[in-house]
Amino acid sequence: MSDNHEIRDLPIGIDASGARVETDSMGSIEVPADRYWGAQTQRSLVHFSIGRDVMPIELCRAYGVVKKAAALVNAADGRLPQWKADAIIRAADEVTAGKLDGEFPLFVWQTGSGTQTNMNANEVISNRAIQLLGGEIGSKKPVHPNDDVNMGQSSNDSFPTTMHVVTLLQIDDALIPQVEALIAAISSKAELWAKVVKIGRTHLQDAVPLTVGQEWSGWAQQLEDALDALKAARGGLLQLAAGGTAVGTGLNAPPGFSRAIAEQIASLTGRAFVTAPNKFAALGGLDAMVRASAGLRGVAVALMKIANDMRWLGSGPRCGLGELRLPENEPGSSIMPGKVNPTQCEALVMIATQVLGNDAAVAFAGAQGNLELNVMRPVIVANVLHAIRILADGCHNFRIFSVEGTTLNEERIRRYVEGSVMLVTALSPVVGYDKASAVAHRAIEHDETLREAALALGVDAETFDRHVKPLDMVGDGYAGA
Amino acid sequence: MSDNHEIRDLPIGIDASGARVETDSMGSIEVPADRYWGAQTQRSLVHFSIGRDVMPIELCRAYGVVKKAAALVNAADGRLPQWKADAIIRAADEVTAGKLDGEFPLFVWQTGSGTQTNMNANEVISNRAIQLLGGEIGSKKPVHPNDDVNMGQSSNDSFPTTMHVVTLLQIDDALIPQVEALIAAISSKAELWAKVVKIGRTHLQDAVPLTVGQEWSGWAQQLEDALDALKAARGGLLQLAAGGTAVGTGLNAPPGFSRAIAEQIASLTGRAFVTAPNKFAALGGLDAMVRASAGLRGVAVALMKIANDMRWLGSGPRCGLGELRLPENEPGSSIMPGKVNPTQCEALVMIATQVLGNDAAVAFAGAQGNLELNVMRPVIVANVLHAIRILADGCHNFRIFSVEGTTLNEERIRRYVEGSVMLVTALSPVVGYDKASAVAHRAIEHDETLREAALALGVDAETFDRHVKPLDMVGDGYAGA
Amino acid sequence: MSDNHEIRDLPIGIDASGARVETDSMGSIEVPADRYWGAQTQRSLVHFSIGRDVMPIELCRAYGVVKKAAALVNAADGRLPQWKADAIIRAADEVTAGKLDGEFPLFVWQTGSGTQTNMNANEVISNRAIQLLGGEIGSKKPVHPNDDVNMGQSSNDSFPTTMHVVTLLQIDDALIPQVEALIAAISSKAELWAKVVKIGRTHLQDAVPLTVGQEWSGWAQQLEDALDALKAARGGLLQLAAGGTAVGTGLNAPPGFSRAIAEQIASLTGRAFVTAPNKFAALGGLDAMVRASAGLRGVAVALMKIANDMRWLGSGPRCGLGELRLPENEPGSSIMPGKVNPTQCEALVMIATQVLGNDAAVAFAGAQGNLELNVMRPVIVANVLHAIRILADGCHNFRIFSVEGTTLNEERIRRYVEGSVMLVTALSPVVGYDKASAVAHRAIEHDETLREAALALGVDAETFDRHVKPLDMVGDGYAGA
Amino acid sequence: MSDNHEIRDLPIGIDASGARVETDSMGSIEVPADRYWGAQTQRSLVHFSIGRDVMPIELCRAYGVVKKAAALVNAADGRLPQWKADAIIRAADEVTAGKLDGEFPLFVWQTGSGTQTNMNANEVISNRAIQLLGGEIGSKKPVHPNDDVNMGQSSNDSFPTTMHVVTLLQIDDALIPQVEALIAAISSKAELWAKVVKIGRTHLQDAVPLTVGQEWSGWAQQLEDALDALKAARGGLLQLAAGGTAVGTGLNAPPGFSRAIAEQIASLTGRAFVTAPNKFAALGGLDAMVRASAGLRGVAVALMKIANDMRWLGSGPRCGLGELRLPENEPGSSIMPGKVNPTQCEALVMIATQVLGNDAAVAFAGAQGNLELNVMRPVIVANVLHAIRILADGCHNFRIFSVEGTTLNEERIRRYVEGSVMLVTALSPVVGYDKASAVAHRAIEHDETLREAALALGVDAETFDRHVKPLDMVGDGYAGA
Repeated sequence: MSDNHEIRDLPIGIDASGARVETDSMGSIEVPADRYWGAQTQRSLVHFSIGRDVMPIELCRAYGVVKKAAALVNAADGRLPQWKADAIIRAADEVTAGKLDGEFPLFVWQTGSGTQTNMNANEVISNRAIQLLGGEIGSKKPVHPNDDVNMGQSSNDSFPTTMHVVTLLQIDDALIPQVEALIAAISSKAELWAKVVKIGRTHLQDAVPLTVGQEWSGWAQQLEDALDALKAARGGLLQLAAGGTAVGTGLNAPPGFSRAIAEQIASLTGRAFVTAPNKFAALGGLDAMVRASAGLRGVAVALMKIANDMRWLGSGPRCGLGELRLPENEPGSSIMPGKVNPTQCEALVMIATQVLGNDAAVAFAGAQGNLELNVMRPVIVANVLHAIRILADGCHNFRIFSVEGTTLNEERIRRYVEGSVMLVTALSPVVGYDKASAVAHRAIEHDETLREAALALGVDAETFDRHVKPLDMVGDGYAGA
Repeated sequence: MSDNHEIRDLPIGIDASGARVETDSMGSIEVPADRYWGAQTQRSLVHFSIGRDVMPIELCRAYGVVKKAAALVNAADGRLPQWKADAIIRAADEVTAGKLDGEFPLFVWQTGSGTQTNMNANEVISNRAIQLLGGEIGSKKPVHPNDDVNMGQSSNDSFPTTMHVVTLLQIDDALIPQVEALIAAISSKAELWAKVVKIGRTHLQDAVPLTVGQEWSGWAQQLEDALDALKAARGGLLQLAAGGTAVGTGLNAPPGFSRAIAEQIASLTGRAFVTAPNKFAALGGLDAMVRASAGLRGVAVALMKIANDMRWLGSGPRCGLGELRLPENEPGSSIMPGKVNPTQCEALVMIATQVLGNDAAVAFAGAQGNLELNVMRPVIVANVLHAIRILADGCHNFRIFSVEGTTLNEERIRRYVEGSVMLVTALSPVVGYDKASAVAHRAIEHDETLREAALALGVDAETFDRHVKPLDMVGDGYAGA
Repeated sequence: MSDNHEIRDLPIGIDASGARVETDSMGSIEVPADRYWGAQTQRSLVHFSIGRDVMPIELCRAYGVVKKAAALVNAADGRLPQWKADAIIRAADEVTAGKLDGEFPLFVWQTGSGTQTNMNANEVISNRAIQLLGGEIGSKKPVHPNDDVNMGQSSNDSFPTTMHVVTLLQIDDALIPQVEALIAAISSKAELWAKVVKIGRTHLQDAVPLTVGQEWSGWAQQLEDALDALKAARGGLLQLAAGGTAVGTGLNAPPGFSRAIAEQIASLTGRAFVTAPNKFAALGGLDAMVRASAGLRGVAVALMKIANDMRWLGSGPRCGLGELRLPENEPGSSIMPGKVNPTQCEALVMIATQVLGNDAAVAFAGAQGNLELNVMRPVIVANVLHAIRILADGCHNFRIFSVEGTTLNEERIRRYVEGSVMLVTALSPVVGYDKASAVAHRAIEHDETLREAALALGVDAETFDRHVKPLDMVGDGYAGA
Repeated sequence: MSDNHEIRDLPIGIDASGARVETDSMGSIEVPADRYWGAQTQRSLVHFSIGRDVMPIELCRAYGVVKKAAALVNAADGRLPQWKADAIIRAADEVTAGKLDGEFPLFVWQTGSGTQTNMNANEVISNRAIQLLGGEIGSKKPVHPNDDVNMGQSSNDSFPTTMHVVTLLQIDDALIPQVEALIAAISSKAELWAKVVKIGRTHLQDAVPLTVGQEWSGWAQQLEDALDALKAARGGLLQLAAGGTAVGTGLNAPPGFSRAIAEQIASLTGRAFVTAPNKFAALGGLDAMVRASAGLRGVAVALMKIANDMRWLGSGPRCGLGELRLPENEPGSSIMPGKVNPTQCEALVMIATQVLGNDAAVAFAGAQGNLELNVMRPVIVANVLHAIRILADGCHNFRIFSVEGTTLNEERIRRYVEGSVMLVTALSPVVGYDKASAVAHRAIEHDETLREAALALGVDAETFDRHVKPLDMVGDGYAGA
């Protein structure tokens, strides 16, 4: 080991085989010699091999940001020698960059505080830093996973800090751009079809007309509102638990640590992170995550409406509504030749359903805090990140493979408008609701056109023709009368 | 009937018995002669007697506001004669004041648009107005339920308008004050007990100390954050669908109606209601209600944590944690004499659970819109208003009957702090994590005090005494280090 | 008070006004003098006036059965004098018969054990028995609410016993007959329309044909399967907690009490109730209720599918699928004259949604037991009984007002079959999937009939006509090939 | 290609690089040359790269069983040449054995019918069979993915068939043994501690005593009941959709196919699979899966209670209930040295929460069928299989790493019993509820022993000592009085 604490420029990787012995407060345990992780990660692998759900890698990477921020603060305060900090920072950067992804093998179903993943990060960073400094991997010298990498921190505050950081970044970087792009694609169609009059349907029944553009504008608006709410919900994630340490009091962290680390994290990520005003709430509850989940659910609820509308409007080709022609991406049936199905809509509907299920788990888990800790963190962050990812990818594919290529069956659309008896509504202010109602009923019963029925019941032709004009019935723009 | 359209000062009530015949577009139907409602309400009673869930009366009363606002706008525009408007307004005011509560018998499980409750309002107001003008009840003259009372409106826009109005008012007037009062009560205890050191518990296991005041401050903070989010979610309710009429285009409402009626409703209620920028979204989705429900859920999630903590901290008296003494309000057992239970906490936990169930129904329903209408309105508004009410009352009773009367068992609290081995954490920065860990393990295994174990493992007494001071371990305030 | 303990034939009602003083272990409290309830009920009214959700009256009535059964067992064993038992039984019968409904004012949001409702029953029965025996109401003599009416019981065992009894009876008597009647109505339509060929739709897209009867048979089968599962789930309710008393050990109940009271309840209700084999599970968990709720949810899931299918198949009249004509029960719109909507379907869809929400609350609550008691009983039983009632009434109204009056638009149905290109599937085994696929695509693109497209692509007419026969494509019966 | 249709003994693997061109009804597409999958799988990869959720491999393997069964039936009927069937069967066996796992790359978020995964199976089996027969991979000759491998099937019936098969096998083989082993472990502790008297707690408050064995027996019983219900729910999975083909009519499958393939699947799996009596229900609904999910939820609800109880009873070591000593598997805190946490309990509680979330998604999805198809299949089967796996692994680890190593703190348990005032309940039948209540209240208020308080209030010592014996208060066995 170098006395001058110089960082060596070593590639990632441990050139060893077999096992080495690492120790923790439980004693010693064998760890694969070619891995950076240590005793506590290894113990977790033994005790928590449950299912196939590994801790989302984005969270593990975000731990790099948090550990780096801590090292920066600790070094600046003189508690951590600069050379140790430098090595920790270098290793933490590698974690953030995804270069050590393979060193985070732990499962979601572990301790509810996320301690084992925090220790996984501590161990990987410490061993990588030791390596960079020429030390013996597993020796905890000169960079100790707890005393150095975890300095001023507890899992109890660093894990929710990392949850907030990764969730916010994922919302910002993965999800919001995809929702915005989808809104843009839908709005573009709304403009394109702003003047195409179509029949409205309420209760699934024929109603008065609107334009195709108006219909699509409603979808765009739903998504915009959902996005606004998501952005608002995102705000709670900006408050960080770091500095609360074990129970919120900040024991073993120096005064000012909370604010300093939040500032570092803000600086490293370019987001307005601040320290949470109350660390007892930040550790005992995970309410900001529950609210973020509600924001995601809001997007899902809107997407479900949109995808369902599109597949119904595209139903057919001959025995459905048939107003839309969705892109044909793949054969639809293994038995019915030539069948094409609204599969992107279906995938999106399933995704929305999954997000509702995830959200139910998150809300339930969020309500289960006890005293100074809510130990449902891994299940919460796993569900929230999962929801973000499938929503983001779902919006992307739905846009590219369905929305953008959708066209209108204008002939069909026109025919519906001409046939609908609900145009009678335009007569209602002139002849009264009761008379108009009689006209509509007569048209249906006698299979007449609306005009025929109106004239038969004494409405004069001039009156009818002046008022029953679909083009005049769709109003102006999106805001109603 | 008076020719000069004078409004008579008649008390509420119809002096008749038996049945009168009313008609609608389906034909005629007998209605109880002493009731103000008409044909469509009666038909709904026949077809939708399902369960015992009647449409929340607050919603029916809020319809008075909406109908009054419409009459004001219609009269101002000259579409509705002033004398008709006056009579409608008088009747609508009576609805709002709760004087006609008995005239709203319809069930939640009706048409999904709420049309029948809109017609219920139209019929009651029209018949009451007819009565006030000296006309014949049931004649639809001179005030027609559709042509006059419903002028410029559709159920499709007036029902979600009323949903937003009533939900916002209930959140503002019923719930927020109760949550705020609860926050104040909890915060007051937090201040009172700001210096009482107690043991922290994470994973339910003994951890490092904090003060009782800090613990309570965390609860208050959780509620404050939930309240902030609820207020943000409330914002979406300020946008009103009125003016969209049947499908969002505003057909049969005059230009400017949307903005004018929103302004009237804002003026009548003193809230910043505005017209929704996109009426197709406002009719096809109910997303603002889903978001309001998420806001309510956020309050429930925090309350569940708080109530659970309080009952566990009050568990005992001799075989539980026993730190808190909750007020004894009633005998707790029909078989165990002298037993007193944390019943207010239990009621609140059940309320929180119910709110999560309601919210699940609301989210599901909110995702089920089709084309120009989401026909899940009654189930949504019923669940949201129900959640508001039980949360509001639950917060009130929990505060009055549990929080305010809670006291501390300071002797027990002190004893825990003295016995806990987790005070060893304060030694960790001095002797290292591994050594500190050995001390803690030894104390537990040998049933020694922490000091005994530390000295036995070579920590000198002076070091121990200087660092292991509970009072010095609780930090300063709420924001951690 | 009569020395000979004779029961007087007194009508229900207390001829008194103002208040009387009752006492319990907390001291004395004023109770309305004209009420049968006593101190603990009154205390609960003070402390738990939350919302408008009163304990379901069916549960209170079922308490009459349980209290009677206990009195019968206690008297038979000689622990309770026969004359006391007789008075208790008389009063309990009145409770069961609904004659004392007004004496059960308590709210759902009370103690989580249901103790207050158990005491409500004890107090009402004891005071009524005292009255019948000529004693002084409120004196607890000669019939004490705890010592006599509650003899051998605790709320901890009697409340879940009553939950099981009332839930089972409501499932049997209220729900199952309505589901069965609905199945019968649907099956009858299935038979009626067994030979009407219609187009099938998968992914909402045109598919190969089936008969209307086959489609309806699928709905009937879904309900039958759901009903079978509900009946299986009902089985767990037959196990009763009675005899476990406070924590499951049966303290203060005599040996054999568990079995004896279960037998009495079985005898009084005519159902195969037995004593639960493990009373610790019966008190600490409420799993049989959670399972019953899942059974109800299963019915809801099937109903949602059916109601959604019916309203889509009935969509139109001119711009929807239009295969079904649903009965027109009421005007559908306050603005669109002549509009008729599938309102029964909508009500049922909302009911199904509500049941899913209730079930979410029940499952969550069911998971929240602690140690010897799950204190989420009132919220669980309230949600389960609510679900039963709205499902039962919903099935009834949906059947009467929608299913039975539904007719076919056979002309429309025929036209769809003729037009569909998916009949090409019948050619697939003859010409191969790829060729058949080409035919279908060509028909759509060129707007040709399937026959035209087939011939254009070289299929000979004879082959086409021999295989493409809708009537031959619908198979035989319901079980597929 | 061999004329004599001999199957060559070729290892799995395609010795090619680059891409080959495959075709389907959409045209041609490049497929990696070293892969067995074909055009439709490739298209799905392009259009549905959403998230990281791949179709559960167990389902893909189970497709091997279904395809083999179909080939057996088709060959026996003479529709499929035996040599083709042999090659298909050989390839299908390889799929089942997991040898072709790498060839199933598709995502959960695909077409809602599962068509793409069915085609994935068809393509892999066909290309592998072609290889075995010496043909050209990708040529569809001599074994065509649709005409031969999919013969007599549609995705619409084969996918739900496979869902049922894999879910049933996973319940049987993965989950049930683990639940049973956990029950056995808990029951064994119940026996071991059958005579250790401990204090009961209801409402978290001290109650009357029971034995540790009784408490544990309740947990075992909850799991047994949940297991029974799961086994009942499993029954619905035995009914298979196969033979319904595209819409339930069985078009293109020969008469008798339904029964024959069900028999083959039964024979291949050793389970009592039968053909579903109504194929329209089997395709349009997925209700048996929803019910299976409810069965899984029932296990989760019981596990949550058990895990919560264990961690509370193990809370401490000095400031909690401290009755149980859970095994110490790993260090509990990165900051608090020597801390050990109930991490297995926490993992199980999170798993239970996840299962509730999964179940919510499944129920919602199950209610979303439309007409002849429910297109929520992938999301349903993915959630159900996920729940099975984490429950199974969770039960396993919880048993091995927590239950089996748990020991009692008998000293603490004894002290609680001695201190509890609720032993007064045993006096209640002797001195009356009100007097006993006064004794308890006095003991608490004056901090006296129960005996002191009783004597002070006039109970004679002999009476007290004869009745207040914890050992006599715990009854006999599990069934209560």
